[in-house]
Amino acid sequence: MLESLKQEVYEANMQLPELDLVSFTWGNVSGIDREKGLFVIKPSGVPYADLHVEDMVVVDLDGNVVEGDLNPSSDTPTHAYLYKKFEKIGGIVHTHSPWAVSFASANMDIPAFNTTHADTFYTDIPAARALTEEEINSAYELNTGKVIVEEFERRGLDYEATPGTLVSQHGPFTWGATPEKAVYNAKVLEVVAEVDYHALQLTKQNLDLPKYLLDKHYYRKHGANAYYGQKK
Amino acid sequence: MLESLKQEVYEANMQLPELDLVSFTWGNVSGIDREKGLFVIKPSGVPYADLHVEDMVVVDLDGNVVEGDLNPSSDTPTHAYLYKKFEKIGGIVHTHSPWAVSFASANMDIPAFNTTHADTFYTDIPAARALTEEEINSAYELNTGKVIVEEFERRGLDYEATPGTLVSQHGPFTWGATPEKAVYNAKVLEVVAEVDYHALQLTKQNLDLPKYLLDKHYYRKHGANAYYGQKK
Amino acid sequence: MLESLKQEVYEANMQLPELDLVSFTWGNVSGIDREKGLFVIKPSGVPYADLHVEDMVVVDLDGNVVEGDLNPSSDTPTHAYLYKKFEKIGGIVHTHSPWAVSFASANMDIPAFNTTHADTFYTDIPAARALTEEEINSAYELNTGKVIVEEFERRGLDYEATPGTLVSQHGPFTWGATPEKAVYNAKVLEVVAEVDYHALQLTKQNLDLPKYLLDKHYYRKHGANAYYGQKK
Amino acid sequence: MLESLKQEVYEANMQLPELDLVSFTWGNVSGIDREKGLFVIKPSGVPYADLHVEDMVVVDLDGNVVEGDLNPSSDTPTHAYLYKKFEKIGGIVHTHSPWAVSFASANMDIPAFNTTHADTFYTDIPAARALTEEEINSAYELNTGKVIVEEFERRGLDYEATPGTLVSQHGPFTWGATPEKAVYNAKVLEVVAEVDYHALQLTKQNLDLPKYLLDKHYYRKHGANAYYGQKK
Repeated sequence: MLESLKQEVYEANMQLPELDLVSFTWGNVSGIDREKGLFVIKPSGVPYADLHVEDMVVVDLDGNVVEGDLNPSSDTPTHAYLYKKFEKIGGIVHTHSPWAVSFASANMDIPAFNTTHADTFYTDIPAARALTEEEINSAYELNTGKVIVEEFERRGLDYEATPGTLVSQHGPFTWGATPEKAVYNAKVLEVVAEVDYHALQLTKQNLDLPKYLLDKHYYRKHGANAYYGQKK
Repeated sequence: MLESLKQEVYEANMQLPELDLVSFTWGNVSGIDREKGLFVIKPSGVPYADLHVEDMVVVDLDGNVVEGDLNPSSDTPTHAYLYKKFEKIGGIVHTHSPWAVSFASANMDIPAFNTTHADTFYTDIPAARALTEEEINSAYELNTGKVIVEEFERRGLDYEATPGTLVSQHGPFTWGATPEKAVYNAKVLEVVAEVDYHALQLTKQNLDLPKYLLDKHYYRKHGANAYYGQKK
Repeated sequence: MLESLKQEVYEANMQLPELDLVSFTWGNVSGIDREKGLFVIKPSGVPYADLHVEDMVVVDLDGNVVEGDLNPSSDTPTHAYLYKKFEKIGGIVHTHSPWAVSFASANMDIPAFNTTHADTFYTDIPAARALTEEEINSAYELNTGKVIVEEFERRGLDYEATPGTLVSQHGPFTWGATPEKAVYNAKVLEVVAEVDYHALQLTKQNLDLPKYLLDKHYYRKHGANAYYGQKK
Repeated sequence: MLESLKQEVYEANMQLPELDLVSFTWGNVSGIDREKGLFVIKPSGVPYADLHVEDMVVVDLDGNVVEGDLNPSSDTPTHAYLYKKFEKIGGIVHTHSPWAVSFASANMDIPAFNTTHADTFYTDIPAARALTEEEINSAYELNTGKVIVEEFERRGLDYEATPGTLVSQHGPFTWGATPEKAVYNAKVLEVVAEVDYHALQLTKQNLDLPKYLLDKHYYRKHGANAYYGQKK
């Protein structure tokens, strides 16, 4: 069932330690089959060194296990909610990568300061608000997804042009057209968090990029007029 | 004698360089057999590259060598005292990991700022006070253990829910149900020290986690209602 | 065509990930054949792991592709302009290395604080100004080259003695007599950015090197009286 | 000639890249045969990947080459002067390791803040003053040695108990009873610079260790009453 998607999700998961985005089991990648309305996700708490393709768990959009012997990631309800609301995404990544968690701990957006950022994220990367006590004590992981979507709606953000977020006090979630692209976006988010941290210590001046530079770099790589890379 | 515990302690020691927690010989792991009242510990000053299972030293709870050709870690009296006072722990780790030593040098707690922390440590990680001149000049390593236990008592901390500490001017000690879990906790402590350092530079706002988030994340992974990971 | 230059440019490109100067495809190296007026450059958006010598693209000094099946780096017009204006250079490197991008994000020069810097860069490494909206919206990559050359002219800098620059909001460009030397200079720039960042946090005192130390170290390694290294 | 010393010096040099203390050719190790009054040193500007035992250069205490086809390190006169003045040392290391260079750029001592420091360095690690214009323009490398020795004399430091220094605007020199121990001290210096940097950012309080803790840790590892490690 969904064998090629399982392979894809497995490989995307294995990229997380290669890209220095996870310690131990602190991360997970999922990928969705939109036609079937099912997604594949890493099992909960399994170390990357012990992970196999056949361990991947198939769940439906309410987070019910459809196939698999292992429990799915405890973050499964967050993934499910994001897939429901962000209808064009094909993959989701959650990590506890340290630079991203530093900004999440400080409840601060990762601001758009440079072209590395603008190549992938068209806006600041938002820090969604911390969850309330009530949200934490009832359906915590589902509410994590709701808080993310609420933040995007409140700010009027396009989830395709801003393919990731922080959740305050917690860490980053990124997404993309495929699981592999969601992993790529997780690495970009970590790198720009690192760079921004240092830029913020170097100067107290306003470093926000002007919109015309965001436009230039974002659309150099995305959309009909993109000219970076090779023709497909 | 205690062959399987020696193997376990040896493997836990070898994880320290793999997890980037030690340079040279600056760390040690021990593990205890509670029934026999004996524990196994790394020999003093032996580089990890030269370490073998059969080099592990067996000592009693007064720190006397029971078996082994090599001197045990010079920190053996600290381990022995912690085993006596923290009766449910099965393994102890000491390192000089750099982020932890930065906080220890500054005599500062590692505050609970994020879920990475709350997943493993239910409270701030305390910095036990620096030892006095008298404590240093008499039974230094034993007194290091006493200062740790005193700090936990003074703050009313549960050593199972806060499985580690800093000793001011020195570095971290962590523990756990097994040597392997104590190593895991040593890595978590190092990672949250790194993240907290950066969060503290990013903002002067109070970033302490509310108790309900500490409860949620700590008990998501620990105790009867834990639902992270796989059923054993 | 230009087979040995292609090999040289390929090898210089492959040094970028080895020296931790690139993630993904965020970098490119070119090398020029001055007699033929053609240069060889990395293709756009090809991951380093998938790169082969035969993928290198040959272009002329107006950036037209002369040979090659793939699109050249999107930064090709920047390289072409620098080759036209900096007539003695043989290779150019562009990366998004993180310490350099931190200074570029802060629009700050990398100051000459130590002999590591003076051994390779005879002056501060300038941060060329950010491009204007008009410059970005018309011939962006060409204008990036123009802004670099303008900065060197405005400051009266010798491009051989200062073999690199930052472009504000973007990142570093370095050059040298050969592609390999340009890569060397890219690594030096990254290392001195890292060191300078920390020096700037340690003290608010003026740390600028005196000219006599810049003279000593720069000319210890360069020019007729150089005495570092081996006779060729 | 001096074949076993050459092997020892070669191996100590090769430890520098393994311990992440050098990029490119930015470091050198030497070792002395006190009876013969000759020392062995790395050749100038040879990359570590290309270095062989037989490339090591033998020089006398005036820095004259006694054996070897290659030029010795350009820092040879510094080594020679230190061997003359610090009569009990057997090996010297110079690197441009980045944390040490950060403190050297800031012309700041590396203060004794923790037991990692006290285990190896009995005092703050001094930053010797920057050289004057005259000292730089005449016998620069010899004068670098003179400034180091002057700083130790001015402060009344024991070069055996403080086995290293920074030279302001430049970087670290360390030494020890053997080339291998000098390399060990170079790594300790780099690690404590990293830790101290972060401690200094965490708090403005005075973090200097009391003398009784320096005594305890330094003499736990050194001298007649040392009890760390194994009996020889």
